[in-house]
Amino acid sequence: MVSFECDYDNGAHPLVLEALVKHNNARPTPYGFDEFSERAKRRIRQACGLPDAQIFFLTGGTQTNATTIDSMLYQYEGVICVGTGHINVHEAGAVEFTEHKIITLPDNHGKMEARVLKKYLDDFMADGNRNHAVHPGLVYITFPTELGTLYTARELDDIYQVCRNFDIPLYIDGARLGYGLMAEGCDITLPYLARHCDVFYIGGTKIGALCGEAVVFTHGNAHKHFFSIQKQHGAVIAKGALIGLQFEALFTDNLYFQLARHAIEKAMQMKQMFQEHGYEFYLDSPTNQQFVILPNEKIQRLEKYVQFTHWGPYDNHHTICRFVTSWATTDEDMNTLRDCL
Amino acid sequence: MVSFECDYDNGAHPLVLEALVKHNNARPTPYGFDEFSERAKRRIRQACGLPDAQIFFLTGGTQTNATTIDSMLYQYEGVICVGTGHINVHEAGAVEFTEHKIITLPDNHGKMEARVLKKYLDDFMADGNRNHAVHPGLVYITFPTELGTLYTARELDDIYQVCRNFDIPLYIDGARLGYGLMAEGCDITLPYLARHCDVFYIGGTKIGALCGEAVVFTHGNAHKHFFSIQKQHGAVIAKGALIGLQFEALFTDNLYFQLARHAIEKAMQMKQMFQEHGYEFYLDSPTNQQFVILPNEKIQRLEKYVQFTHWGPYDNHHTICRFVTSWATTDEDMNTLRDCL
Amino acid sequence: MVSFECDYDNGAHPLVLEALVKHNNARPTPYGFDEFSERAKRRIRQACGLPDAQIFFLTGGTQTNATTIDSMLYQYEGVICVGTGHINVHEAGAVEFTEHKIITLPDNHGKMEARVLKKYLDDFMADGNRNHAVHPGLVYITFPTELGTLYTARELDDIYQVCRNFDIPLYIDGARLGYGLMAEGCDITLPYLARHCDVFYIGGTKIGALCGEAVVFTHGNAHKHFFSIQKQHGAVIAKGALIGLQFEALFTDNLYFQLARHAIEKAMQMKQMFQEHGYEFYLDSPTNQQFVILPNEKIQRLEKYVQFTHWGPYDNHHTICRFVTSWATTDEDMNTLRDCL
Amino acid sequence: MVSFECDYDNGAHPLVLEALVKHNNARPTPYGFDEFSERAKRRIRQACGLPDAQIFFLTGGTQTNATTIDSMLYQYEGVICVGTGHINVHEAGAVEFTEHKIITLPDNHGKMEARVLKKYLDDFMADGNRNHAVHPGLVYITFPTELGTLYTARELDDIYQVCRNFDIPLYIDGARLGYGLMAEGCDITLPYLARHCDVFYIGGTKIGALCGEAVVFTHGNAHKHFFSIQKQHGAVIAKGALIGLQFEALFTDNLYFQLARHAIEKAMQMKQMFQEHGYEFYLDSPTNQQFVILPNEKIQRLEKYVQFTHWGPYDNHHTICRFVTSWATTDEDMNTLRDCL
Repeated sequence: MVSFECDYDNGAHPLVLEALVKHNNARPTPYGFDEFSERAKRRIRQACGLPDAQIFFLTGGTQTNATTIDSMLYQYEGVICVGTGHINVHEAGAVEFTEHKIITLPDNHGKMEARVLKKYLDDFMADGNRNHAVHPGLVYITFPTELGTLYTARELDDIYQVCRNFDIPLYIDGARLGYGLMAEGCDITLPYLARHCDVFYIGGTKIGALCGEAVVFTHGNAHKHFFSIQKQHGAVIAKGALIGLQFEALFTDNLYFQLARHAIEKAMQMKQMFQEHGYEFYLDSPTNQQFVILPNEKIQRLEKYVQFTHWGPYDNHHTICRFVTSWATTDEDMNTLRDCL
Repeated sequence: MVSFECDYDNGAHPLVLEALVKHNNARPTPYGFDEFSERAKRRIRQACGLPDAQIFFLTGGTQTNATTIDSMLYQYEGVICVGTGHINVHEAGAVEFTEHKIITLPDNHGKMEARVLKKYLDDFMADGNRNHAVHPGLVYITFPTELGTLYTARELDDIYQVCRNFDIPLYIDGARLGYGLMAEGCDITLPYLARHCDVFYIGGTKIGALCGEAVVFTHGNAHKHFFSIQKQHGAVIAKGALIGLQFEALFTDNLYFQLARHAIEKAMQMKQMFQEHGYEFYLDSPTNQQFVILPNEKIQRLEKYVQFTHWGPYDNHHTICRFVTSWATTDEDMNTLRDCL
Repeated sequence: MVSFECDYDNGAHPLVLEALVKHNNARPTPYGFDEFSERAKRRIRQACGLPDAQIFFLTGGTQTNATTIDSMLYQYEGVICVGTGHINVHEAGAVEFTEHKIITLPDNHGKMEARVLKKYLDDFMADGNRNHAVHPGLVYITFPTELGTLYTARELDDIYQVCRNFDIPLYIDGARLGYGLMAEGCDITLPYLARHCDVFYIGGTKIGALCGEAVVFTHGNAHKHFFSIQKQHGAVIAKGALIGLQFEALFTDNLYFQLARHAIEKAMQMKQMFQEHGYEFYLDSPTNQQFVILPNEKIQRLEKYVQFTHWGPYDNHHTICRFVTSWATTDEDMNTLRDCL
Repeated sequence: MVSFECDYDNGAHPLVLEALVKHNNARPTPYGFDEFSERAKRRIRQACGLPDAQIFFLTGGTQTNATTIDSMLYQYEGVICVGTGHINVHEAGAVEFTEHKIITLPDNHGKMEARVLKKYLDDFMADGNRNHAVHPGLVYITFPTELGTLYTARELDDIYQVCRNFDIPLYIDGARLGYGLMAEGCDITLPYLARHCDVFYIGGTKIGALCGEAVVFTHGNAHKHFFSIQKQHGAVIAKGALIGLQFEALFTDNLYFQLARHAIEKAMQMKQMFQEHGYEFYLDSPTNQQFVILPNEKIQRLEKYVQFTHWGPYDNHHTICRFVTSWATTDEDMNTLRDCL
């Protein structure tokens, strides 16, 4: 059975694992104050073109979102997000658990639109009763989105301008950041992205690591007690070098981007395969998630050999199916899929 | 200046105030364990036709919603509500402050539709990843709704059946309960409503009291430590008789319903006035809130004499305006409005 | 049956009630933005000698403590309090409900000692692992304390100096503020107290009002969105004039202080009565709470005529009993007690 | 420089690392539903003698405590703990962050005493005002304690009997469980411990793993939606096999206990070394944490070669120092220490 169900049903990239093995006896300083974490941060800063960025390592995506968002908000503030946003639908209420409301806006193929955001903020500011409402304190977007779509450089800039005009910081969830940056036609680079938001995270779990996400505060704007907030969230691990070592490996010789690029290539091959068989797509994704419309009887046959996700019904006879490639997708995986179509 | 801005810019009904004055020296047992509160509960039980209902008095609507909802949910559960629902838009995040997510559904003129609710719950139960989502633990509706509309007996029954089929309790926010029950054409009585939900509250603040809401658990389903939860929410007042006395007065000789009926009569007069002048309504409300579409220049002139709320823009030249009557609306108020139209 | 059980088993002072009756038809602006609340604030500012103090009205003590403390803390901070402090023992976890830890210090007859506070803060600052601990963000004391004792002007000054040296604000819970200020030998005035803390509240519920507490931020240090935080806590009432009117009455012609003085006089009479009968006191309280050591068989007989609180066992044959006077204590109450001793 | 500062400044045991490397390409089911996790659970159940125990893997200690405690409590309940307990002092308020109070009792050398617990619970039940207090909902102890001390089998039984009499579950924090069970003179076995509590966790981070703790609900008493609560806490990692694989290795051929035993042997050697040099101990610890009273000038010289923790001042000239051994402590480490004494 071959799996295209997700991009985290695998282990670590061999070079990442090698780093863990090689330095296993290094007796690193606990809680992330070790030399490997420091070196990893240095490399990430360099890759972002932000020599002064403040970087923290956390274990997983939900934890990273809840901790970062909580650290950026006052108690009476909420975070703005499209209705399909990951924090709104797939994190078991981790943000609300920190007492903050998620203020939802309609999305356009998974993306927030600058004009919709502006209208919401204009209306909020014009509302004489706004003190009875949740104050917007942060804007959250994902890159790529839950639907595998990407913001253009212009779109991101537009959103960030709105944020700046209203003095509300912008946070980018980059659980699959690499798969976005390396996508076909993506006109956003890591330094561009880093300059167009206030905080973002670089997902490691889905791109080569066993676990680990790197939160990047872009301009000295991390909460001065972020570590304590992280601890309070149960988001500090004693052996912080576990994550530092992995990110050091991922940001050595462009490994992170090569892994991401590999997944994109496989995704584009897959796209072509489906197209050659005449299947249509729910939307046009340039990233490692492909949403294909399949006849229901086809799905039954396919599932004998291939795992994938039923995203939702398309019509009475068709279902939207999600196929995901990753850095670990092999030629054998692709061949099996090809043979089944 | 005459005000139709809201139904809480007034004092107490004279009979309510009289009760406070009359029993001021009674030295009642604190924290709501006094004889007046007991008598008030007895009368409310009788009015509801629920001899075993458990009743608690709280101070205001937001407090009542947050405390009641929190008491009904496990930590991982959320409350289902239409996007326009009061808890979702006008309570400063008081529900999220208790760590619970508000799961929003689209509304139909302010109302939740049974089929939309059923579809959401069907989809949730069918979702293999539902353990990564917020579990629905309660359904919240308002009667009347934020838009002054009412559920029919049939619609309420349909919603309650869905709730029961999914074993999820139904909570009705009755901040303006009387104004709904006494509305033109309303086919729901208090006992009917009480039999078609698991918990609801009878709003006192907006109908004759200085403060106070009565939460009614309809069938022995109050949390066994509701008092402690209420205390934890800061929602217990030391001199609980303040609310008990008021509700006793309101539920003596049908006062509560008479006051509500008065407001409805004034609202219907107002409706006719606007109609006679050719104005149209944003929607057809049978309750004490009327949403009229007014030309912007008319609004400017009107506001010299009358206070009301700008609900939102209708088009470039018109605005939706909300006019609210209450038990305290006088003939003079009505005459002033008539003279200005 | 005569009650010395607490100071809140009564109604409102007649002048307070009269104000409510007199202005019942005034149609005040909702949510506390009415003229009565404004006038009440002006008078409180004057009484405090703080022309620029920011004042907010809330309903009860637990609510006031939780809301005020929450507004003063970052999410990772806790509040320092003696173990016997009211928020630590009698508020059902309302502070922890806002996600903040209560950091407890040992008390001296209910009071916090400046040197104990200083040692805790010194140790905290010297602790290399303090980022793994809850950061102290506020100091909470009560005046009078849970045990009816009072800080001297010097003791309060000492505590405030420690707070200032560590840049941590001081909050004084004044649920029974008047009963402290008017106590025998108290060398603290309201203006002195107001100059020696960052925020405090003036309790109305226990001194003449039906409900209501006035939070006073002494130097422009209220959270800029305190109203929204208050709303989020369910601590805003629609008809805010209910509290404003009462405080206006209480701060007219020194009523608040006269009421408090009355209770103190009764308490001192009571003290003398017990002394004359040879009873000893658990501690020497100059305020309206008296803690008497009574033989258990005496208690049984006394309880046929008088209500009071069993504070805790003294030894196998004696119990510490709390007797509380209030502004509403009458000569008849006192005579009944005298006759029973 | 040799470190005795803690038991988590190391990597993974070679056999643990080997397991990660060996199965790196296994494509395990995400979120802990993989075969390795299942096998690990089976082995833990067997080691505990509890074939039906429910087991969950989390990443670190603070996260495990906060998630487990939160899952066991209603919103109005708190957890009982000695003042020196880990959750009360070293977890940055992670428990309060979940809105629950920590109710503290005095400790005896780090241990809770059954009679102190019983007295607290007796008093609580006897308190007529207990509905104004936080209800005790769970008892938390650590084995070994923060001070390296151990409960005897009898002491644990006594505590558990009190818990059962009051129908309050008992939770044992086993961050260093192995170091307790393998200690000199410990008369508690893993099955005994598992039968004398309702939930406990087996710490992996400090005994051979890179990260990971195993929560064991002993008798079908895990919250039915523990997974969702875990997710809500940000405590689920996508690649759950990372922890499952480590625990499978640790519970193969008694590795976990051998590693723990190693640390104890080193600790006992260390104890003898200090004794031979005439140093005294702050308390007699049979576990891997030793608390030695050292002259301050000695400390300065020692710190040139050895890292350890200043636990606190003993007197003006001496300091209590903590030295910790671990599974990774080498003979070289011991020799260095010996040479410096």
